[in-house]
Amino acid sequence: MLKQRLLAPGPVDVPPAVLEAMARPMMHHRTAPFKALFLQAREGLASLAMVPGDDVLILAGSGTAAVEAGVLATVPRGAKVLALHAGKFGARWLELTRAFGYQVAEVEAPWGKALAPEAVAEALRAHPDAAAVITTHSETSTGVLHDVAAIAATVRRNAPDALVLVDAVTSLAATELRPREWDLDGVFSGSQKALMLPPGLGFVWLSERAWARQEQLVGSSQAMPSYYLDLGRERKQQRQGQTAFTPAVSLVAGLVVALDLLLEEGVEAVWQRRTHLNDALLAAGVAAGFEALAERPSPAAAALLTPVGIAAPDVVRHLAQQGITIAGGQDQLKPRLVRPSVVGYADRFDVLTLAAALEEAVRALGHRLAVGSATTAALRALQDEARSA
Amino acid sequence: MLKQRLLAPGPVDVPPAVLEAMARPMMHHRTAPFKALFLQAREGLASLAMVPGDDVLILAGSGTAAVEAGVLATVPRGAKVLALHAGKFGARWLELTRAFGYQVAEVEAPWGKALAPEAVAEALRAHPDAAAVITTHSETSTGVLHDVAAIAATVRRNAPDALVLVDAVTSLAATELRPREWDLDGVFSGSQKALMLPPGLGFVWLSERAWARQEQLVGSSQAMPSYYLDLGRERKQQRQGQTAFTPAVSLVAGLVVALDLLLEEGVEAVWQRRTHLNDALLAAGVAAGFEALAERPSPAAAALLTPVGIAAPDVVRHLAQQGITIAGGQDQLKPRLVRPSVVGYADRFDVLTLAAALEEAVRALGHRLAVGSATTAALRALQDEARSA
Repeated sequence: MLKQRLLAPGPVDVPPAVLEAMARPMMHHRTAPFKALFLQAREGLASLAMVPGDDVLILAGSGTAAVEAGVLATVPRGAKVLALHAGKFGARWLELTRAFGYQVAEVEAPWGKALAPEAVAEALRAHPDAAAVITTHSETSTGVLHDVAAIAATVRRNAPDALVLVDAVTSLAATELRPREWDLDGVFSGSQKALMLPPGLGFVWLSERAWARQEQLVGSSQAMPSYYLDLGRERKQQRQGQTAFTPAVSLVAGLVVALDLLLEEGVEAVWQRRTHLNDALLAAGVAAGFEALAERPSPAAAALLTPVGIAAPDVVRHLAQQGITIAGGQDQLKPRLVRPSVVGYADRFDVLTLAAALEEAVRALGHRLAVGSATTAALRALQDEARSA
Repeated sequence: MLKQRLLAPGPVDVPPAVLEAMARPMMHHRTAPFKALFLQAREGLASLAMVPGDDVLILAGSGTAAVEAGVLATVPRGAKVLALHAGKFGARWLELTRAFGYQVAEVEAPWGKALAPEAVAEALRAHPDAAAVITTHSETSTGVLHDVAAIAATVRRNAPDALVLVDAVTSLAATELRPREWDLDGVFSGSQKALMLPPGLGFVWLSERAWARQEQLVGSSQAMPSYYLDLGRERKQQRQGQTAFTPAVSLVAGLVVALDLLLEEGVEAVWQRRTHLNDALLAAGVAAGFEALAERPSPAAAALLTPVGIAAPDVVRHLAQQGITIAGGQDQLKPRLVRPSVVGYADRFDVLTLAAALEEAVRALGHRLAVGSATTAALRALQDEARSA
């Protein structure tokens, strides 16, 4: 028997109480109990996203579906979009907006770096007519947390009418995210990351400005066609506790439980905890001879470059043999990057487990290291954080 | 949010696949699918208990129900029973046999010590007419593993007709247990320990000698009355995949999955793994300033006496505050004993977690200790074991 641990940046291990909720007898979605459940989920999600009382829409689909729904609802046909990217997920929105025929300008930063607000300002000076700026908050491919607050402020200054659309798939409930204070227009997320659910739900929040844009567009020739992902239609239904199409009932049941767990702890406490855990994981990785990739680390993943001479896929494989699933690198980072994560149902003892497993892996692969180096570094980092908390 | 870990010597954390199986839609127990499932469970249990092909009975009840069923089925009314005890569970069988009116002789050893076969031989010389000797294999209250093989051999030499009845509640699937080779007559166990299920199922295996005794007794004035726990009736039903009374259907569904997990690893590999893990846990405890209580440690629990000046309940409480549930001591050992356990759904990273948590607890309670002492000791012990394996 091999005990299994899913310590990748999503999907993540799901808390037993959530599994249990999802394993309950199915309920029909056109019933009062489901309606109550769904409204409870929407209310909890709005609190989790720091937009209490606002409409947060729950879609049966992935985070990508949520981003697509938000873009199509608010950005007029053929309009100009500025796509910011410095990794795999940023590049996805470049691809998505291009695929829908928008005029796409881009700001690119090297993988591992954070997007510079100055570069965004410069691009907006060249493209003052951009209808929207789309960016990733936590770039899971590089472990970088982009400074969305600063980027949004830059957009507001340089292109006051441009919408700021944010991929928050791995940042929601993982790190500070304040849609109202930061003056964001669209926040899109998914269920299988910091929300600790299986994949299958997408979440959408839009600002009043964005909803006004959506309402202006409806029925006009500028509106992009949509049906399954039609947010206007969804909003009408979801305010009544219903959905336009059959919802993923069991995932919604799990969502209510996961939201209870997170809200009971408190949104800001959750952000702080996950940041501390990831910092300790990075410290452990560095003590084991890895190099931290991210200029500005996101708590969603510890992006660690292997010690020289050690292939990342070998490290991933070594951990897999111990029952621990982490992510490797994507594209050009494949040979050198590993991405363990404690963004899900995880705590400091999981950090310790990962520290021990990483230490063991590199030692098994020929890296010289004293027994206990990484675990002791993890314990020290966790202690320091506890002290400073 | 506090991640919860149940690392006590039972009930234990249940593997997700087992939880999932138990959350499946209920099936009626008088159906072919349940019959197939039940026969599969019985077959797997017999393999796990190293008695392939034999009747193993599954009762809806606890391990105590299984022991009671076995005693009542095989020991004639008013007969003499020799009860061996050196802890809480051994004392329970002394109590049980007395409660049913047997003439009970006893062999006692201090808590923490193993029962000496010589003492059993001596008692049998004084009581050569004992119909049965009842003993605990793994004494969970003290973490001691009694040498049941040697005890059984001693009984065979000194009282050839006495049945050897063994409480294997925490030893089945935790440590070497060979009912046939050791010439045992009754092996009784439960679901919530090394089988990694919730509590609620009891298991009974009897030798041919014991079944012959049971058959002789049936209908005679020497038979003890029984109904719900009537093993003769159960055996007839269970051979057909049925039960005399309504079975705990969902627990049986989970049992099949748990058996698959354990049998896939291999019974002897499971014994070895759990022994190694517990040895490493003891080493970590000693490095953290605890003292190992058990003369002959059982893998079911690491019985650790706290460092001088530290109260065991404080250690238990400290771990509870970290989401980790371990057991404290019972009766006179309450002030000094803690009993973490990796007998359930646990692996070496759980040993590391417990090492860190114990280290942290004693440090928080004033014991001076270098950061990483216990975890490094655990890692070293795990490494030594891996090397010698």
